[in-house]
Amino acid sequence: MSYSLLILPGDGIGPEVMAEVRKVIAWFEANRGMTFDVSEDLVGGCAYDRHGTPLTDATMARAQEVDAVLLGAVGGPAYDNLDFSVKPERGLLRLRKEMDLFANLRPAQCFDALADFSSLKREVVAGLDILIVRELTSGVYFGEPRGIHPDDNNPDNEGGRVGINTQRYTSGEIRRVARAAFELAKKRGNKVCSMEKANVMESGILWREEVQWVHDNEYPEVELSHMYADNGAMQLVRNPRQFDVIVTDNLFGDLLSDAAAMLTGSLGMLPSASLGAPMANGRPKAMYEPVHGSAPDIAGQGKANPIACILSFAMALRYSYDEGAAADELERAVEKVLADGVRTADLMGPEGGTPVSTSEMGDRIVAAL
Amino acid sequence: MSYSLLILPGDGIGPEVMAEVRKVIAWFEANRGMTFDVSEDLVGGCAYDRHGTPLTDATMARAQEVDAVLLGAVGGPAYDNLDFSVKPERGLLRLRKEMDLFANLRPAQCFDALADFSSLKREVVAGLDILIVRELTSGVYFGEPRGIHPDDNNPDNEGGRVGINTQRYTSGEIRRVARAAFELAKKRGNKVCSMEKANVMESGILWREEVQWVHDNEYPEVELSHMYADNGAMQLVRNPRQFDVIVTDNLFGDLLSDAAAMLTGSLGMLPSASLGAPMANGRPKAMYEPVHGSAPDIAGQGKANPIACILSFAMALRYSYDEGAAADELERAVEKVLADGVRTADLMGPEGGTPVSTSEMGDRIVAAL
Ligand SMILES: CC(C)[C@H](C(=O)O)[C@@H](O)C(=O)O
Ligand SMILES: CC(C)[C@H](C(=O)O)[C@@H](O)C(=O)O
Repeated sequence: MSYSLLILPGDGIGPEVMAEVRKVIAWFEANRGMTFDVSEDLVGGCAYDRHGTPLTDATMARAQEVDAVLLGAVGGPAYDNLDFSVKPERGLLRLRKEMDLFANLRPAQCFDALADFSSLKREVVAGLDILIVRELTSGVYFGEPRGIHPDDNNPDNEGGRVGINTQRYTSGEIRRVARAAFELAKKRGNKVCSMEKANVMESGILWREEVQWVHDNEYPEVELSHMYADNGAMQLVRNPRQFDVIVTDNLFGDLLSDAAAMLTGSLGMLPSASLGAPMANGRPKAMYEPVHGSAPDIAGQGKANPIACILSFAMALRYSYDEGAAADELERAVEKVLADGVRTADLMGPEGGTPVSTSEMGDRIVAAL
Repeated sequence: MSYSLLILPGDGIGPEVMAEVRKVIAWFEANRGMTFDVSEDLVGGCAYDRHGTPLTDATMARAQEVDAVLLGAVGGPAYDNLDFSVKPERGLLRLRKEMDLFANLRPAQCFDALADFSSLKREVVAGLDILIVRELTSGVYFGEPRGIHPDDNNPDNEGGRVGINTQRYTSGEIRRVARAAFELAKKRGNKVCSMEKANVMESGILWREEVQWVHDNEYPEVELSHMYADNGAMQLVRNPRQFDVIVTDNLFGDLLSDAAAMLTGSLGMLPSASLGAPMANGRPKAMYEPVHGSAPDIAGQGKANPIACILSFAMALRYSYDEGAAADELERAVEKVLADGVRTADLMGPEGGTPVSTSEMGDRIVAAL
């Protein structure tokens, strides 16, 4: 049996880090008897350059068929002035929406060897291991009505336009991502903190009530707390280790997971998984992505850290191919290379280490397998 | 001439910290020939308890008449299950909206004596002095339609409800807060960073375009940059000193300013001002508030730090009463007391100091005037 994988390197450093994942895949094929049916395609700015759209229908169809998608990153200043409807980000959002990847798992883990990279004190972040579960297919990212319109009949509106987006959540959308969070918490610290602004937004009230409902009816054994998202942003900075699993909506999840990722000081290390409903094979529809973006400032220079993308592939091994042992093996190889002091530029601190390029880091990890 | 001031202590620690401001006012009356026409009233949960509404029309009318409002804090767990329409927060939001206080100034300043209180490394936050200008009267806090509705015709919606809020900004709303930010930047580091999610929200595109318009047409001499709000949350954690003035919308401003405040480790120290259009006397309509909330866990125990509220009154002296010298005097008194090692519980670190209660802290500051 072969595992199907659609690779979408995307823009910026995406192609560079993905090349290192290719080496890892080749190793597992050669040494662990796995067969991957890998296809590769364009997404984001590069797809727009070639096809005039950030995601073609053909690529979308292929994403629906495969066991897993691995995406590098999209966007960059070259595309900043594109029309909204063809921005690189639309390709990513279309994948999320049409694959219905409602649960975005963003671990914020502080790797011990890297704790001094954090702007936070070592004693605040050492051992940090939280998991943000962000709703990914609804909310203000997708709600209608939306757009920029003339506001001509409003003499008070200097400038004469109005910009509108709609935050919209159904009970069902909230319940399914809450279930994902509770399930994950059971395998971790058994604690979920749900974040919204129920004090000022009705959609936040619904969020809180539905998360509570799922808890009371289905997961009473998991510890649940609620927090306003502004306080959540504060508490993440003040004492992040108070959290185990955080569940929150699409927009809050965007900000809070970026802040949480930055706490660890290891942005180049953090993978993510976006999961949907189970497919015929019982595994969830899934897309995996490094948390870092396209990093246009260092693209093409061999400086990018491929670890986040390699660890994203490890998540694919675990969640999409049921190859937990192989995932463990890959994660251990990464740890070993780090423990040996091998460092891409982003990981190079005052205590030194062996500086390596993107490609050398990939080679070292393969060698450690 | 007497200066009118409406004091709204509110809930939790609000009344305690406000009592200390009263002492400061008395000192300025006795020693600096000022006369304050002070009225006091209820807002938030305590107003609901007395009147069944978090803000009566009479209080609202009084707020419209005075030179300045000074508010303590609203809310607390006792009110968590109140109906949305009478939540303590509604009183605060009504004040903001009806007084049209569109520019919320939230300084995040790291006091040197307190730099070690931050969860961030001293070298990352020492000397930090940023000002977040948050739009306060529009956006998803106030947009219509909003509410929780049955979603009966949707068989896919387990739970059967839908929660809706609307993010809505007009060009004019964006331009006026942008002007406030540019004006403030001119008196500081001459740099504005505007934050939105123009990559996924049309209201964010309008935000970016209108801020740019105000810059190009009216403040070309101020340095302007744009940043996605998720990256903003990251950068605030990574390297907050890259910023001078940040301008952002109501909801992003809520999260980002709380995160920024927490960076400083001095939450009990941070004041804020919410400013509107100029009144007949040429000074802006204004409400001043400590950034900390009602802190129900320590309410009534004499543990609260009154400095944030006292510094909020200093901002009132400066912006509403044109008493800049008195504001400086008050701020210097606070600095002196801190330098002398006088510490409320929240400021008590490993290096020790003289522990004082809320009321003693007020007395010390008055004595230092
Ligand atoms: C690139 C952008 C559309 C995206 C988002 O806003 O969701 C990114 O910030 C993320 O968090 O994956
Ligand atoms: C109390 C609440 C309504 C308020 C807000 O969300 O604006 C608070 O968090 C603030 O930032 O002033």
